[in-house]
Amino acid sequence: MEKKRTEIASLGEFGLIDRLTGGFTVHNPTTVKGPGDDAAVIRIEGASELTLLTSDLLLEGVDFDLSYFPLKHLGYKTVVVGCNDILAMNGLPRQLTLSLGISAKISVEQLDELYEGVRTACEELGVDLAGGDTTASVTGLAIGITVLGSVAPDRIVYRSGAKPNDLICITNDLGAAYMGLHLLEREKRVLHDTANPQPKFEGYEYLLQRQLRPRAPIDVIRSLAEEKILPTSMIDISDGLASDLLQLCKSSGCGARIYLDRLPIAKETYAMAEELHADPVVAALNGGDDNELLFTVPLEDQERIMRMGGAEVIGHITEAGTGAALVTPDGSTIPLKAQGFHGN
Amino acid sequence: MEKKRTEIASLGEFGLIDRLTGGFTVHNPTTVKGPGDDAAVIRIEGASELTLLTSDLLLEGVDFDLSYFPLKHLGYKTVVVGCNDILAMNGLPRQLTLSLGISAKISVEQLDELYEGVRTACEELGVDLAGGDTTASVTGLAIGITVLGSVAPDRIVYRSGAKPNDLICITNDLGAAYMGLHLLEREKRVLHDTANPQPKFEGYEYLLQRQLRPRAPIDVIRSLAEEKILPTSMIDISDGLASDLLQLCKSSGCGARIYLDRLPIAKETYAMAEELHADPVVAALNGGDDNELLFTVPLEDQERIMRMGGAEVIGHITEAGTGAALVTPDGSTIPLKAQGFHGN
Repeated sequence: MEKKRTEIASLGEFGLIDRLTGGFTVHNPTTVKGPGDDAAVIRIEGASELTLLTSDLLLEGVDFDLSYFPLKHLGYKTVVVGCNDILAMNGLPRQLTLSLGISAKISVEQLDELYEGVRTACEELGVDLAGGDTTASVTGLAIGITVLGSVAPDRIVYRSGAKPNDLICITNDLGAAYMGLHLLEREKRVLHDTANPQPKFEGYEYLLQRQLRPRAPIDVIRSLAEEKILPTSMIDISDGLASDLLQLCKSSGCGARIYLDRLPIAKETYAMAEELHADPVVAALNGGDDNELLFTVPLEDQERIMRMGGAEVIGHITEAGTGAALVTPDGSTIPLKAQGFHGN
Repeated sequence: MEKKRTEIASLGEFGLIDRLTGGFTVHNPTTVKGPGDDAAVIRIEGASELTLLTSDLLLEGVDFDLSYFPLKHLGYKTVVVGCNDILAMNGLPRQLTLSLGISAKISVEQLDELYEGVRTACEELGVDLAGGDTTASVTGLAIGITVLGSVAPDRIVYRSGAKPNDLICITNDLGAAYMGLHLLEREKRVLHDTANPQPKFEGYEYLLQRQLRPRAPIDVIRSLAEEKILPTSMIDISDGLASDLLQLCKSSGCGARIYLDRLPIAKETYAMAEELHADPVVAALNGGDDNELLFTVPLEDQERIMRMGGAEVIGHITEAGTGAALVTPDGSTIPLKAQGFHGN
């Protein structure tokens, strides 16, 4: 008799994690919040701050392509990807560990480059490299990153706290990293048979930087603290705005309206979209790899958020049952759809 | 001009980690101990206990072979491998995160099995699954495990505290997991072209259990606390006794003598070694995958250690400069040699 076989794609990443982690019981009183948010929350006895814990896995051929991704940038981006999960709880990253599965084609000098990028990101974000593990890999490079962070108990923000009429804010702009990826893939195809490839990247620096060396929005977390603004909910945008906003709405039990003409899209993203005959709004909604933050604040914080800078208001939270939708300038609403299973 | 290329094997795993993690500065006062021990040590302000952090990466084709490794056992063993690094600091595991890179050939039902093993190990060890990440993999299954643990400040044990005349102790027996691996590899070769493979495992249950479903030596950590014995140093045996004892000696700045006739080797390991025309002592010294603990205690604790049970005294620590060696019954000494780079 054939065993039942359910494809992972049929559940989606969030559905899969819910199913797999459902049957576990909690043994330690220090475990405040397990799976289901950007990071786990741990309350160590006597500690003045909560501890945050998050892990990510980045695999060659899925999350990065070493034929065009410089190892120094990969090291930097790995740290940013890990730390963003801590920022998304309104916390600050403190320690990290890096585990590497290293294929035989990688030399020590290449690992030096990877670690140079890790070191630069650690300096910028004030994080300490606290440990690591190396193992051989018979396939490609595999990178596991774990970040520990901290946050005061009265400053922690979950995905689940958004309320109707809250303002929806995002940091920086969207879709540029996705366009940068397309550009790199195009140059890779064009130059595939060239003996001495000279990729043409002039004028595309912004898109490449957003793909290869994204900055963590740590300044926004610091500004929120200085301005004494406490978001009601927050999530890391990595799967695309649509997917992550739907997740936030699900966790908070609410709907959302975001406005097409409020979506922050860089002029370089528009230009590249035109060149590729692609839709920049689709890139912004579903492109992924943005490494930004999506958060909500009470309506009364509107002025303070606008004065603070670093984040744009793109819409507002609505009652449960109203769904999450994009509102176009002519007033029609388009329901948001999540992406399928594609990692991170 | 060709870039300089140094092969990773020429440095070894420990040399590699030293090189890569050397140039990092510490930014957070909470970071007590970074890379270089089984787990990082973090002192969170106000907390009564120290926090321990460790990460490992297990890759298909290197650390496990899915053609004979049941997923349930793999999930169980992954948790044990992670938790042993916490035990090796004399701590107890509290929370863990699991990151999976999942290839298309894996079904949801197979992941259910993997998580069933994870859940069983979590129950036995009192650990909470606190988070996870899933990503697609274009190659094999990749598993990242991170474990947080805790230990009282006056109970923490590093690799670096061994002193001359201290007794060298190990938990359980050595070499059986390695023999189990050989048995599985042999059956895989024999049955490669068989339509309906019926591997012959009768009588080999102990070796298979040691390879496929090793138990974490958590009882020994609890007994040491109950007996008020504080080891002077401790390390997880995963690369083989020789390699890990050398590492402990290097960290502690000392030498060691272990006695051939004291090495705990199970009768099943002897029998299998005879069948394979292999040396059971080599399996015990260099086989790897034992998932046991190596620790040292002051000479005056000898009686208490023997009364406690669960650990055998196999030798003693010697002065710096005397090297680490195996002493045979006829009194000759054989210097111990470390294994090369092979992960974990």
